Amino acid sequence: MRLYDYFESGNSYKVRLMLHQQAIPFECIALDILKGETRTPEFLAINPNGRVPALVLDDGTCLAESNAILFYLAEGTECLPDTRLGRARVLQWMFFEQYSHEPYVAVLRFWAFAGMLADKAAQVPEKRERGEAALAVMEQHLARTDFFVDRRYSIADIALFAYTHVAGEGGFDLAPYPSVQAWIERVQSQPRFIPIDYTF
Amino acid sequence: MRLYDYFESGNSYKVRLMLHQQAIPFECIALDILKGETRTPEFLAINPNGRVPALVLDDGTCLAESNAILFYLAEGTECLPDTRLGRARVLQWMFFEQYSHEPYVAVLRFWAFAGMLADKAAQVPEKRERGEAALAVMEQHLARTDFFVDRRYSIADIALFAYTHVAGEGGFDLAPYPSVQAWIERVQSQPRFIPIDYTF
Repeated sequence: MRLYDYFESGNSYKVRLMLHQQAIPFECIALDILKGETRTPEFLAINPNGRVPALVLDDGTCLAESNAILFYLAEGTECLPDTRLGRARVLQWMFFEQYSHEPYVAVLRFWAFAGMLADKAAQVPEKRERGEAALAVMEQHLARTDFFVDRRYSIADIALFAYTHVAGEGGFDLAPYPSVQAWIERVQSQPRFIPIDYTF
Repeated sequence: MRLYDYFESGNSYKVRLMLHQQAIPFECIALDILKGETRTPEFLAINPNGRVPALVLDDGTCLAESNAILFYLAEGTECLPDTRLGRARVLQWMFFEQYSHEPYVAVLRFWAFAGMLADKAAQVPEKRERGEAALAVMEQHLARTDFFVDRRYSIADIALFAYTHVAGEGGFDLAPYPSVQAWIERVQSQPRFIPIDYTF
């Protein structure tokens, strides 16, 4: 498998982490979003939506969207529940991640990283407020359970871990979220865990 | 099943359409987002993320996130492919919908509907541009295929249809997207199709 990747991207990290934990060999092709490398004609022929990660399977098929890739890799493994309700619950948290979490928690980190916070100052308070709301929803849930679904590690945890554990880089303070902090440590203690800056 | 619903919401409409097409009986409980009815303590006890749709199953379990609900309802039906790659592809388009389409196409419609366009004027051009980009990605794909995945009607079509066919209410002109328009007509001609304003 060939993974088109951006090293700083939590969405790419989700896939790197899952591939490594499942011991699936893959080739990593790093693209630089800031240099426009995901908008070239060559890459748009691979993923017309112009985003990483994109996973090219051994038969040449390309899959896009980090959480769809996770689901593909998780089928038949312990990282996806074997019940219909369990799978739907995993997807519920993954859609929560992409709609109510990533656009705030990840985007503020990206703006900080790319030096765009001053330009985007007018939008920062709303992003901050909504990111805190997402973290509060996670805290409320994790106060009652060790992992997001069925009390065991799944791709819902991988999806939410990716940007939550580096939320501080976007200016979020995790101190008010002790259950989130404890869950981060549980994810980090999973077998074959690799950090976001692990290089292959 | 009991569906917590907001009549004007495309996300709620996805679930109403799927339930009706699958001939699953359900009770509809309408909440008014504009009156704060999705943020009351009573509703937050049902969905802590404070959003509709939320589907309460017969055993009292609550499922949230429109596309996770669609996946739950689609398992074992013709609306979800029976291959691993097909399911991942359906999810790819559903995550595209929630991340690259809904926050632009649906949000501009909501702002128009709620009389918020003047207040949000500074954000409208970027929302417009990104919404057009999502429609262009759909157009490019639908120029080559009748439906989003495996050339047959699936929950990926339901998810993308919900806000695309009313994009005009948010000021989007579909004239430059003839393949999208033809696909809209194909979806509308499916058995047991109901329009967004169909009342139960």
